Amino acid sequence: MDMPGDTLSRLEQTIAQRASAAPDQSYVAQLNARGLPVMARKLGEEGTETVVAALSGSREELVGEAADLLFHLMVLLGAKDVKLSEVMAELDRREGTSGLVEKAARKA
Amino acid sequence: MDMPGDTLSRLEQTIAQRASAAPDQSYVAQLNARGLPVMARKLGEEGTETVVAALSGSREELVGEAADLLFHLMVLLGAKDVKLSEVMAELDRREGTSGLVEKAARKA
Amino acid sequence: MDMPGDTLSRLEQTIAQRASAAPDQSYVAQLNARGLPVMARKLGEEGTETVVAALSGSREELVGEAADLLFHLMVLLGAKDVKLSEVMAELDRREGTSGLVEKAARKA
Amino acid sequence: MDMPGDTLSRLEQTIAQRASAAPDQSYVAQLNARGLPVMARKLGEEGTETVVAALSGSREELVGEAADLLFHLMVLLGAKDVKLSEVMAELDRREGTSGLVEKAARKA
Repeated sequence: MDMPGDTLSRLEQTIAQRASAAPDQSYVAQLNARGLPVMARKLGEEGTETVVAALSGSREELVGEAADLLFHLMVLLGAKDVKLSEVMAELDRREGTSGLVEKAARKA
Repeated sequence: MDMPGDTLSRLEQTIAQRASAAPDQSYVAQLNARGLPVMARKLGEEGTETVVAALSGSREELVGEAADLLFHLMVLLGAKDVKLSEVMAELDRREGTSGLVEKAARKA
Repeated sequence: MDMPGDTLSRLEQTIAQRASAAPDQSYVAQLNARGLPVMARKLGEEGTETVVAALSGSREELVGEAADLLFHLMVLLGAKDVKLSEVMAELDRREGTSGLVEKAARKA
Repeated sequence: MDMPGDTLSRLEQTIAQRASAAPDQSYVAQLNARGLPVMARKLGEEGTETVVAALSGSREELVGEAADLLFHLMVLLGAKDVKLSEVMAELDRREGTSGLVEKAARKA
């Protein structure tokens, strides 16, 4: 069975391969050619769209916006040479032995 | 070796277990008790923080903000009973046979 | 000399007049016809674009994005029947006798 | 009678005066001392909070969040040496002779 990570790992590879393709051949290449502020802006917009979908949209809209958000997050991370595995390591680190939720609660 | 999905799948389970815990014991429970608008707001704020970290922060700050964004996305999805596997299926569906990037480029 | 409020008061009137015009005749009518989630989403997107312009754009881009943000804020307020004067009264109320900045500092 | 611009012009002056005050005396000074990324982040967060208030909050919450958004927009503009009058001039320019709404509709 496919794990969530299979999808994200494949997506990370695809994004890395396309980042330097011809901009008219690939949306990822287009975003990279337009530069970091555009990629950051797209991420922020997808964040807003996910907020709106969660509060006012259908289940399907939320699934679609969450997918857009993850996609543009990975494009942005790729442009900054941050690997998905580093973000996952940070999530694991926070969870640690006593549970991420407890750590987060102490921080809050 | 740990795949990204192992981390996210564990996190999804942890969040589901904690959602209905006592709010003073768990940050996830706190967020669920405060309601969907608060969870949506937190996601939007983490989106903004990721934008700012990508444009003006260090690599470490970006990793930390991306982790926060993923965490709060999963809390929000959990509150709406959307499974991570549904979002991954949507990402897979878009990629299809000819590549997500091409589909996205046609849409753009 | 024109005060900032002259511009905003005229804009508020224009937006109120156009809100119920034919959607193909007016951008404001279009937004109102599409509904509150679309107007809220536009506001959030302009917020992100203002953030990105402040951190990575030119002075001209920041002026333009701030104008877009104000415009879409006034469209959203109009759709919710909130008058600009109510928002100004709230800003005045916070400033009070001892200065808004001190009140805000105490809150922070 | 007080015009909206009276409030905003007074606020602009107050913010300019406080920007270089001691950070422990003034919230505006605190924000300026923390730097542009923090001011930008605050604006983005208030944008998100306005979105959430418009979709899920009370009328009073929307008024309060709109006031917060305007306040932090003016702090950010002040930090970038952009005058409110420049943003108003841009709004006026767009409105032009045939109405901002029509121009925006053509652009959309």
